[in-house]
Amino acid sequence: MPIPNTDSLTAGSLLLAWQLKGKNVLIVGGGDVASGRIESVLVADAHITLISPSNGLHPLTKHFIDATDRIAYHDRAFAGPSDLEGMDMVLTAIDDVEESRRICALCRERKIPINVADIPPSCDFYFGSQIRSGPLQIMISTNGQSPKLANLIRKRIEKCLPDHAGEAIEKVGELRTKLRERAPGVGGELGKKRMRWMVDVCTSWDLEDLALLNDEMMNKLLDNGWEKNAVPKPEDVGLQSPSVIPSWSSLKALLPPTFGFLTGVALTTGLLLTRRRH
Amino acid sequence: MPIPNTDSLTAGSLLLAWQLKGKNVLIVGGGDVASGRIESVLVADAHITLISPSNGLHPLTKHFIDATDRIAYHDRAFAGPSDLEGMDMVLTAIDDVEESRRICALCRERKIPINVADIPPSCDFYFGSQIRSGPLQIMISTNGQSPKLANLIRKRIEKCLPDHAGEAIEKVGELRTKLRERAPGVGGELGKKRMRWMVDVCTSWDLEDLALLNDEMMNKLLDNGWEKNAVPKPEDVGLQSPSVIPSWSSLKALLPPTFGFLTGVALTTGLLLTRRRH
Repeated sequence: MPIPNTDSLTAGSLLLAWQLKGKNVLIVGGGDVASGRIESVLVADAHITLISPSNGLHPLTKHFIDATDRIAYHDRAFAGPSDLEGMDMVLTAIDDVEESRRICALCRERKIPINVADIPPSCDFYFGSQIRSGPLQIMISTNGQSPKLANLIRKRIEKCLPDHAGEAIEKVGELRTKLRERAPGVGGELGKKRMRWMVDVCTSWDLEDLALLNDEMMNKLLDNGWEKNAVPKPEDVGLQSPSVIPSWSSLKALLPPTFGFLTGVALTTGLLLTRRRH
Repeated sequence: MPIPNTDSLTAGSLLLAWQLKGKNVLIVGGGDVASGRIESVLVADAHITLISPSNGLHPLTKHFIDATDRIAYHDRAFAGPSDLEGMDMVLTAIDDVEESRRICALCRERKIPINVADIPPSCDFYFGSQIRSGPLQIMISTNGQSPKLANLIRKRIEKCLPDHAGEAIEKVGELRTKLRERAPGVGGELGKKRMRWMVDVCTSWDLEDLALLNDEMMNKLLDNGWEKNAVPKPEDVGLQSPSVIPSWSSLKALLPPTFGFLTGVALTTGLLLTRRRH
């Protein structure tokens, strides 16, 4: 157990996955920044109220308003405290600094969490660079130091994420639900046993294999695995494992030595044949 | 601009970097899970009130209580509403499901955001797997589907993170502060020019070089760069760039072709020399 030095535990944020299912989120503003906020909030299954004069709408904001009935749109400016009634969260992205601060003060009186774009002291929380693949969500925050570097690091992470990570997580979630139906109950010894078995499956199978699980294979995995306190291999539940077929990335890894080998053959042949002619 | 299909925007969370500097966080419970919460909340510079009978304290929790005066510790069980006075956030990690739900209800009446370990419906937010390197913080969430896979993916990301990413972000933050002192003002054309120049520096320098910036180099970068609307190279501000010295990772990349080359030379030599003897 590494013991952290408490002096180094500072200057950060508390990273959270906020739950908004069925909650009401007010977004004030409809420009570029607001369109990004709308997308993030839709992902979290919130009801959105969007307040912004229609002449300031970004094309993407317009698209969202037209494409989904999860946004109640009001073509006007923020009107005052009545707009905050029943709201669980407020996000503003308007150019008017004074108005932004006024909205922030109203929210703080009402204990409604708020983010005011570009005014850190008026933010109860910040956003970061994001990656999403099904149920997998990743946030990269530089704590306001450099959004550009956050973006560059996001791209680097995207490249190295295992293929099908999102699908694998989805399938593991389904398997866990099936397991809970088969062995129900909260907490206790059974809960621990369930958790241990799920961990064993996750660590002994490749992500690529987990991603391919279907209903029938999951049932086999539970019949021959959970019931017998074992973890069958992918092929034991009828999976044609892609992890034994070379992937493009493993082929790419073979290219440099192959290239080196051929260069070595060519050069040596050339050299030796030249020598023979002397 | 890729237009997202709104139907696919669902079933996630809103990932946030919550700001807790100077705020009050109540943690109920002192076991394994609580010790992790304490660490995360200390990072965010909050004042912690910890309530837990001392016989249930995890060694790491004990360490935190002893090592910092940022935790007010009370050796007892949760006493009721009076414990919630002045709290900005509450985290519980106790085994008593009924008591947990009672605390949750009290918090919701008071609009205090709460996380109850292991009881998702009693959580306003979830935690995820985390990476931290200075001002860089990364969270991996599987939206409750598979904490184990979140952990495996975290390890994969840790391996592929660029060296010194945290230091680079720190230095870029300092550079931005210096630039703001030199060219002060909020928003407008100057704000945009500042942002563009910072983006240019971040994209044209390697992270490894950014991480090595010192005070003197930053001043040179501003004198010869910002003032002249240019982006000097690392060597122009006196940096012995490590990005031109081959790093271990670039040497590793050279190993396979070199190995292939030598194998090619050896095999061909052997073959041709054998042929000559016939």
